[in-house]
This record gives sequence, structure tokens and C-alpha cells, in this order.
Amino acid sequence: MTLKVGVIGTGMIGQDHIRRLTQVVSGAQVVAVADADQAVAEKVAANLTGVRVHPTGADVIADPDVEAVIVCSWGPTHEEYVVASVEAGKPVFCEKPLATTTEACLRIIEAEVKAGRRLVQVGFMRRYDSDYRALKSVVDAGTVGAPLIFYSTHRNPSVPAHYTRDMAIVDTAVHDFDVTRWLLGEELVAVRVIAAKPNSHGGDLQDPLVTILETASGVLVNVETSVNIRYGYDIRGEIVGETGTVSLADRGPVVLRSASSVGTAVPQDWRERFIAAYDVEFQEWIDEVGSGADLTGPSSWDGYAAQAVCDAGVEALYGGERVEIRLADKPALYS
Amino acid sequence: MTLKVGVIGTGMIGQDHIRRLTQVVSGAQVVAVADADQAVAEKVAANLTGVRVHPTGADVIADPDVEAVIVCSWGPTHEEYVVASVEAGKPVFCEKPLATTTEACLRIIEAEVKAGRRLVQVGFMRRYDSDYRALKSVVDAGTVGAPLIFYSTHRNPSVPAHYTRDMAIVDTAVHDFDVTRWLLGEELVAVRVIAAKPNSHGGDLQDPLVTILETASGVLVNVETSVNIRYGYDIRGEIVGETGTVSLADRGPVVLRSASSVGTAVPQDWRERFIAAYDVEFQEWIDEVGSGADLTGPSSWDGYAAQAVCDAGVEALYGGERVEIRLADKPALYS
Amino acid sequence: MTLKVGVIGTGMIGQDHIRRLTQVVSGAQVVAVADADQAVAEKVAANLTGVRVHPTGADVIADPDVEAVIVCSWGPTHEEYVVASVEAGKPVFCEKPLATTTEACLRIIEAEVKAGRRLVQVGFMRRYDSDYRALKSVVDAGTVGAPLIFYSTHRNPSVPAHYTRDMAIVDTAVHDFDVTRWLLGEELVAVRVIAAKPNSHGGDLQDPLVTILETASGVLVNVETSVNIRYGYDIRGEIVGETGTVSLADRGPVVLRSASSVGTAVPQDWRERFIAAYDVEFQEWIDEVGSGADLTGPSSWDGYAAQAVCDAGVEALYGGERVEIRLADKPALYS
Amino acid sequence: MTLKVGVIGTGMIGQDHIRRLTQVVSGAQVVAVADADQAVAEKVAANLTGVRVHPTGADVIADPDVEAVIVCSWGPTHEEYVVASVEAGKPVFCEKPLATTTEACLRIIEAEVKAGRRLVQVGFMRRYDSDYRALKSVVDAGTVGAPLIFYSTHRNPSVPAHYTRDMAIVDTAVHDFDVTRWLLGEELVAVRVIAAKPNSHGGDLQDPLVTILETASGVLVNVETSVNIRYGYDIRGEIVGETGTVSLADRGPVVLRSASSVGTAVPQDWRERFIAAYDVEFQEWIDEVGSGADLTGPSSWDGYAAQAVCDAGVEALYGGERVEIRLADKPALYS
Repeated sequence: MTLKVGVIGTGMIGQDHIRRLTQVVSGAQVVAVADADQAVAEKVAANLTGVRVHPTGADVIADPDVEAVIVCSWGPTHEEYVVASVEAGKPVFCEKPLATTTEACLRIIEAEVKAGRRLVQVGFMRRYDSDYRALKSVVDAGTVGAPLIFYSTHRNPSVPAHYTRDMAIVDTAVHDFDVTRWLLGEELVAVRVIAAKPNSHGGDLQDPLVTILETASGVLVNVETSVNIRYGYDIRGEIVGETGTVSLADRGPVVLRSASSVGTAVPQDWRERFIAAYDVEFQEWIDEVGSGADLTGPSSWDGYAAQAVCDAGVEALYGGERVEIRLADKPALYS
Repeated sequence: MTLKVGVIGTGMIGQDHIRRLTQVVSGAQVVAVADADQAVAEKVAANLTGVRVHPTGADVIADPDVEAVIVCSWGPTHEEYVVASVEAGKPVFCEKPLATTTEACLRIIEAEVKAGRRLVQVGFMRRYDSDYRALKSVVDAGTVGAPLIFYSTHRNPSVPAHYTRDMAIVDTAVHDFDVTRWLLGEELVAVRVIAAKPNSHGGDLQDPLVTILETASGVLVNVETSVNIRYGYDIRGEIVGETGTVSLADRGPVVLRSASSVGTAVPQDWRERFIAAYDVEFQEWIDEVGSGADLTGPSSWDGYAAQAVCDAGVEALYGGERVEIRLADKPALYS
Repeated sequence: MTLKVGVIGTGMIGQDHIRRLTQVVSGAQVVAVADADQAVAEKVAANLTGVRVHPTGADVIADPDVEAVIVCSWGPTHEEYVVASVEAGKPVFCEKPLATTTEACLRIIEAEVKAGRRLVQVGFMRRYDSDYRALKSVVDAGTVGAPLIFYSTHRNPSVPAHYTRDMAIVDTAVHDFDVTRWLLGEELVAVRVIAAKPNSHGGDLQDPLVTILETASGVLVNVETSVNIRYGYDIRGEIVGETGTVSLADRGPVVLRSASSVGTAVPQDWRERFIAAYDVEFQEWIDEVGSGADLTGPSSWDGYAAQAVCDAGVEALYGGERVEIRLADKPALYS
Repeated sequence: MTLKVGVIGTGMIGQDHIRRLTQVVSGAQVVAVADADQAVAEKVAANLTGVRVHPTGADVIADPDVEAVIVCSWGPTHEEYVVASVEAGKPVFCEKPLATTTEACLRIIEAEVKAGRRLVQVGFMRRYDSDYRALKSVVDAGTVGAPLIFYSTHRNPSVPAHYTRDMAIVDTAVHDFDVTRWLLGEELVAVRVIAAKPNSHGGDLQDPLVTILETASGVLVNVETSVNIRYGYDIRGEIVGETGTVSLADRGPVVLRSASSVGTAVPQDWRERFIAAYDVEFQEWIDEVGSGADLTGPSSWDGYAAQAVCDAGVEALYGGERVEIRLADKPALYS
């Protein structure tokens, strides 16, 4: 009962997912690949057994042997491949973003609604992280009462030279937006962006940035993105409830008493921090798709909503004012 | 070489300071007291040796035996007693607020400038807390680089029935305002107030409240006041610098492994949390006053600036917009 | 390239390993099973696809389709199945204990030496736990200098009624013995057992028990077994080196501020604590066996040495004196 | 109501206590001093007001102005001064050791019993440390059930060249012995000493050393002394009870996120760690002596019992076997 998977996009992330499907998780087999650079796809396939290389992503989707599709290609191509997969009736896992505009996201939703069942999952892997899941379970159990404030802190030691001002919102904080919606179970309705004193390592970037959001019920969300903070890749979160708070713990596996201090390590990059979450994300997707169960992972709607928050965030980044986030009506498929 | 002190106001706080001067710190002696309710003053004096009871605070100040004055009376009377002490050339320790309006604070400053030397100290005791001092020393050492964001969290398990909406700013967050100015060594120039989803235990209060301030150099300050959070009296602070962060640690003296968890205690009220800071505050004041050294504690200017931030904060609380904080010119005496 | 595995023993642990091989790890397939109670084996096989049920473990080993064997049957049967697997030239994973006497362990070693290559792996799963691995990597890096003392703490909330006095050594502390040998890379040469004041929840057991061991180079090892301590399943370890120490961290994923305390959860049983270690253990074994690589996991020699320490530990438990641990000569195969 | 104190011994510790009495605590005044090196005493007195310098400690005790005596002179002189103070009916605070032999301790006890009331207090300052007090209060409250094991860890970064093998017991572990008796409220009845692999920084010392003691009720006590461990002065303690454990917390005032780690500082020497305990110790002694209340601090009996454990410990250090600790009958005065 092995799920036969086609992978579109065999760059760094695609290759990592192929490794995951082949060597880590159970129940899947990669049978077809394609990449904009066909030579790369050929090279990747050469290290595997029984993998066909197709000239285009569309051919991967059309391959009758392919039962499910994974899209890791360049963002602007996502819409085309996701819609084609949906129209072919094949479950599709799409790395974030679902699409690069809210309009494109809505077209995907339209196709999926027409198909009448959920076929699309978006790669918001934090929902599969064991610490975030523990955070959510404490909130859901009511241990700290109703959530009132959520602090979500996203720190990177550094960013590459091509990192632009907008990316603090659309590339970095987008994870915080999604995880907020998931943790609190409600939509974000407004956003403000406030720049702190700029980090001198950040060049022209507005870094750090504090993004303040409101949820439909009034929860205040404070997202800090610090992308040049040197000391580590540090993802923190604290939910302040009516009677207490719950936070992500530090993850260091050992405590070191050395050189006048006692402490634990901070991860150095997102791979180190979230590698296990990617594994869980894929195992659960394979299990659900393979068994024909309903998909429970991030949906097209989640991809659309995250995109809508990003659009408003970018507007607030430049305008400086509170921007309202307006969403389309939510199809029943996603309720 | 004992400093002879007169105490104006012998209510709860005055009595606690008298206990401190008599039984805890070194080098001081209470020689005179007064209270609006003279019977209370008589009763307090009856438990001590060699303490005169005066009919008014003015008489305490005028008492030739009194070398220094402590003002713990009702806020609206502070201006009168502080100015009188200054005019009498006697060092005066005034519990917060220095005065209830910025105008009154400025009149105190005017009197002190006329006196030509610092005679006034305001009771912002956090500056004497060993943890805050450790925080400041790490920042000052440059260990985390230039500060960019400061999170200051002020949580109370509950507040009395007479606690009003404004008090979240003028009574609670005022400590965060002062400690921010002291930690960062610069003035606050603007303030915004954002209400989170209201805590159902808070009645009509806007609680929790997030107050966002900017310093002159652009540091963003995020003050959370949660005054009905039940779990404890929890004062937290984190300074985000260019290369790292430094935070107040949890203060529990022991770690308990019990009933499925490992943890430490959170203080239950401000007395428990800050009692040692009050002791240090008084010991240092007595040492400086007693030896004729320059005062290094919170000055009239600090009392005035805190009041100005509170005024702007209350305006922002009702208006919802960013309010600029404008200060008078700073006399050289306070530079 | 799927490894075809036969499982001998389909009780609780066997079933869990079958679930792991089928649903969690990559690259293996269960093709044959047997159990002393054949009805249980039939029932387990009925939920799977393509699994033959054999009347005996010997038949599983003899099955030409079986490429590797997993032994989860009753301890006294281990020797027979492991030796038979070795003689059949098939890699065999044996749950602890390798065998119930050192003599039996030595017979397994003899068979394996005769086979000329490592075919046996013993189920000491702690070596696959990410926290223990981090501990070892810090020690190996020399960060705390040469190890001088190792505290290994093994706490259980409770034990079943059939738990006997010896089991504190042979069933509980045996994990600490193995992990000590692995962490420090040397043999244990002597053991003392000292009973603490008995826990009133422990009936006639000597609980807690402190077992003090010495390694060949003189490192002192202090093993605490507390098997009725109620608060949780808490596995702790601290290596004291010449210049510092390194300890296993607490593993709680979130920090809860609630009801006057701040803390994190302690696991409630060994499954919760070590489930991920079992997954890694099997994945690595499958990868090594499947690729024909040399086995790197716990060997027959490790199984034998642990058994020898247990024997000496039980002698010390009853005799009260320091007991020397004498091992046979170590075959070159295990160097 | 100021207590007039005479100080015998004005070396480093004596000077620190004089500073404490003069500048830190409330209610005491130093009126007389003496030192074996009279020039030192003269120099110390020159910085104070109203302090007489006497040629001998006996003269300090005999000075009619002296109401209470503090003995900080060389250990072998303690007996003489303490007995003389007792015979003069003057309360005496004696730095540890009470005397250098158990016989001398018993002579002090005899003198005090003859005096008919407690006049002697020994300087075991850990009993005044706020963390140890919190530890004791949790144990006494029964939160972790009856204590079964106590781990007491005593780590020094380094020791001076004159530090001898015995001093690990009589100078270092003696604090652990006293704090054990106080925490558990019972006597120690047997001791074993086990050397770990020697720290290469320790020269000929047996370092670290693990001392294992038993209390009258059977609690096992594990004292680690590591006196060359470089990383810091680290005093740790964990009481393992029937249902949980309670430990001294790490004391760092701030948490630093920097250079790939998150952690807090470890103290560098005993002054930093215990300075506040000394202050509390003296304040309470002054309050009790000044008010004529019964002394509650460490008694002559405590000084004697600690000495008896040290004697047995040194015997065990050289003999390697379990040594029983036999105490004289305890006079009713100390019950």
C-alpha cells in the first residue's frame, strides 16, 4: 500500500523532500519528477530507483502512475500545478506560498470547491512541530483560560543579500500569521507594522519589525521579526490567557555548566529547528492520502488567508497605519 | 553618625518604611512623624523610642532635629512637602508620584534648581532590584549590542475594586516607564495604547493593555499590563539587542519536581517581589545623604518625566492614536 | 530495496515494533511472525498484508523470504533465536536482555565470532535518544574536560506488583549500565549497592537504591533507581568533568505559568520518554542492514557486559560489599 | 537599643563582619576589637569611631562595655574565647569551626550547660541563605513526602596551594554536613568516602570526592566536593522524597540569549553566593541577642556534631571503609 508520488521542482527543498519520502517516512515512493532545469531532475533521478523524469510539471501530474503530487517549484508556478492536480483529482501538497496573489489562491479554491473535496495541502510545517502542538493542546484544554495576547517571535541570525523589506512580512512573518490562525482558531482582521530602531547589521532593511494584529474576537497578536540577530534561529511564542500563560520552551537537549554559566544551545537555522516537523508533516499527509481519509492539514483556505494577511501587512509596512484584512466568503468545504 | 529622619505619612507604606529604618537598614533613626490622622501617628510612635509626633508635615520638616524627610502621604500633598523640604535645605525622599501633575513636578524642579543641588529622590524602587541591576549591567556592557526593543511585562493576579481604567497607566505602567528610561538612558518620545481582548475577570477595565512607546533614539518599548491574570505577580523584561537578548530570570529559589511537572514558584504580590529592593533603596539613600555624597537615585526630573509619559499615555488610552510626549527643557542640575 | 523482516514474539513490544516497521520507519516490510501463543500471532498478522504466521521462531528464521530477524520473545528464549539467526547468517535485532545469563551471552558471542562478522544488535534504545546523543557529543568534544563522575538517575512513578528486588538492578538500572559504558567508552569494573531510606510506597522493595560503579579509568558512576516516586518518569544524567558538567535537559515542550508557578511537564512513562528513540533505533538498523553496512548499534559484547554488571550488581545488592566485575577477553570483532 | 559588640580577630573575615555590623545591618555597634597582630587591629579601628583596641581577646571579653562577642580569630583559639565569653555570661558568635577537636567542643558545651542557657552561636551561614530556607520549608511542608536521599554538591573553581587532602572534608564538606543535619533535623550516623577519578588540575588531592552519609532514620546523603572544577562556585542540593524532589535553583538574575546559547551566570566564589546569608545571619543574631530572645541559630551542639562527622569523615578518607559516627549524650539545653 505504497503511495506513488510525483515531485515537481527538484531544487534544494524538492531534494530534501525526496530524501524524506525515500529514507525517512513510511508508505510513499517517488515515481516521477520534473524541474524547470531538466538536467537537475535527471541528476536527482539518477540516484534513485524507478523514477521517471518528465519534461514538465504538467506531465508529472498527467502520469497515470502518479497518485499524489508534491509542488516545490518556483512560487509563481504554484497556481498552475495545484489547479491541474485538483482538476486531475490528485491530492497535491504545495510548499508555501499556495500562490503569489490572493486572486490566484481564490482560483485554486474555486477549482477545489468544484472538485467537491479537499485535495490541496499547504506546507505550513509549524503546525506539525511537537512544541507548537503542545502549546495548542494547553490552550485548547483551557489551562490558561481564554487567550488574550499572543507573542510570536521569529529570530534569524542573518538573511541573504537578496532579502528585501517586504520579505520580513511575506516570507518570514507569514509563518507566524498561519500559526496564529491555527493556534487561536480564528481569522486575523487587522494589522499594524511598527519599525523598531534598526539593527546596524541589517543595511537598509526595517529590522526588527513588530507586526501587531487583531483577531476576529479581539486577541492581540504581537509578531517580532528580527532577522539579523546573530545569536541564533530562535522561534518563541507565548499565549497570555485570562489566568496564566503558556510558552514554547527552549529546546536545547542538554544543559551545560561551563565557563561561569549554565545554559543550553539555541538552534542555528530553520533546518535544525523544524526538521522533525517536516517529517511529521509528510508522514501524516501520506497516511491520510494513502488511506483516503479527509485531509486535516493546512488547506487552500489557509493558504489564501495567509496571503491576504501578507498583502495587508505589506500595505501597513509602507503606509504606517492600521489596515483591515478583508476575506472572501469562506466556502463550506473549509468549515 | 546616624541620620535623623522625619516621616510624613504613617499609613501602610509609611509604617513599612519606619520598620525598615528601625530594624533593617543601618545608619538611620526616626525622630519625628506626622499623619493626616494624628491618632495613627501617635500609635505608630508609641511603639518606638524617642519619636516626636507633630501636628503637620510642615512641622516635621521644620523640626530642627530632623535632618532628612520621607514623604509617604497622600499623592496630592507631595508637592507641598517636597517643596518645603527643599526650601529648608533638607534631603527628601518622596514616594511615587513625585506630584500628581507635570506642572507640580516642574514647580518642585524649579525649587530644587534654585537650591542649587539635588535634594529630592523619588521612590522608583525597581532601580534598586538586583535583577534589574543585572539586566542594566549586561546592556551597559554591550553584551547584546545596542538595544532595539524592550518588552516590559507587568502582571498582577488581581486589583482592588477601586482600580480604575487610568490606573493601568498611572499606577501600574508608570514603573515600566521609569525603568525603561533608566535602563536605556534616554527619554520616551511617543506612546500608543492598544487594548487586547478583555479579561473577563476585569469587569469594565481595559485589561490587558499593551502600551507601545518610542525612545528618542528609536527603541521600541512594549509594555504589557495584565492586572487580573490570577497566576501570580510576574514582572518580566527582555531587551532585544543587535546580537542577542537579555531577560529578567524567574526568581523561584527552589525547583520542585512534583505531580508531573518541574517548576518554580512565581511571587504572589509586589511585597514579595520587591521587598529587598526597598531595603537597598533606603540603605543607599541613607548612605548618600548621611555622607553628604551626591544623590544618584531617581531625581525630580525622573519624577516629572514619568508623569509626562503617564499624561500622554492616558491621552492615548482614550484617543487611540499615537501621542507625542513633550518635555520641558532639562535643567543642567539633572544632566 | 525493502528489507524483509521476520518478528519472533508478537506481544506488546513485538506489536509496537511491527507498527513501527509498518507505519513509521522507511525501508522495511514485515513478512513473517511467530509467537508462543500462535493465536496472538494470527491476530496480529490479520491486520497486515502479506505476513506469514509460522508455528515457531525457528521457522521464522528458516523462512527463505526473511532477510533479518527481530526477537521480542520471552528472555529465556533469546539465546536460541539469536544463535539460530547468526548461524543462518541473518542479521538479528534482539530486545534486551541479549540472554539471561552471561554464559548464554558468551555462547552467542562465540557463534557470532565464528560467523566472522557482526550480525547481532541488542535493544538498548537510549543510545538512540537525541538528548543522550547530545550529551555524548558534548563529552566527546571535550567541552567539560575528562569525565570524572556520572550521575544517572532513573525514576519511575510506580512499578507493577510483580516487580522484585533484583529487578531494580537487572531490569531498571541495566539501562544506566549500558548507557554509562557507551557514554564513557569504557568498561565498568566494580559495583556497590547502597539502600536509601525505603519509600513507603515500595512495600518490601529496597527503593530507592543507589548503585555506585567504577569504570576502568576510575570514573565514579552514581545510579539512582527510584521506582515509586509518583511525580513522573524522569531520566536524568549529569557528567561531571574536569572543567564543567553537562546534563540531560528537562524535555517539556512548553512552559506553563499558572497557579503560582512556572514550569514544564515531566513524562509519565517510558513510552512517552523514549518513543522517538525506538524509531531512530529501528531506522538506523534497517538502513545499516539494508545497505550491508557494518552494524554500529549495541553488540553482543554490549549485551554480555551489561549482563555481567547486573550479575555483580545483584551480588552486591545482597552482600553489601564492593564486588568486582570480571569480563571474558574481548574478541577482536568488537573492538 | 544598640547592641555593643566586641570583635576578636580582625583579619579578612573579621573586617568583613565589622563592615557588616557598621554599614549593613541594624542595631549593632562595634565598641572593642583585638587581634593577634595588634597593628592590624589598630588600623581597622582607625577607620571607625569609638572603637577601643585591646591587647588580647580576653580583654575584649572583659571590657564592661562589651555586651556580645564575635570570634573570628584562628581556629585553635576559638575554645578559649568562647568558653571565656560563656563564663562572662556574654553571648558569643563564633565563626566555624566551633573548636578544632570534639573534646574542645564538649568543653564548650559543658561550660554552656553550666551557664544554664544558650550563649553560643556557630557561623554556619547556609542556614540563613534564602534558597536553603525555601528548600527546608518545602521539605517541612511535606510537599515531596519524607526525604529519602539528599544530594549536596559543593563545587569550587579552584583552591589555594595550601589546601590539603583533609580540607575537602573539614573545610569544604563540613558545610554540607551541617546543612544536612539542619535540613533533615536528625543526626548523621555513618560515613563513607569514595574518590572519583582525580581531576588533573588538583595535583595530589583526591578531588572530586564523594562522601556518602547515613542519617539516624536511614536517609542517604551524597556529598560531592569538586574543588578544581573551573566553571564556577556552584552549590547545589536536591532532596529526593517519596513523591517528588526539591532542589536549589540556579541563581542567575538574568537570562542571556547570546552566541548560540541561552543561559544564566554561575557565581564565581563563596562571597558572591553567600554574602546575603551572612547579612541575615548577623541581623537575626543581633535581633535575638539585643531583645534577650532565645538563640535559634546553630548551637554548640551543632558545632560539636559537625566536628564529630568531620573526624569520622577523615578516618573514612584514609581507611576507605564505612565509619560510624558516635556522639556524646545530648544535653537537654539543645533539645
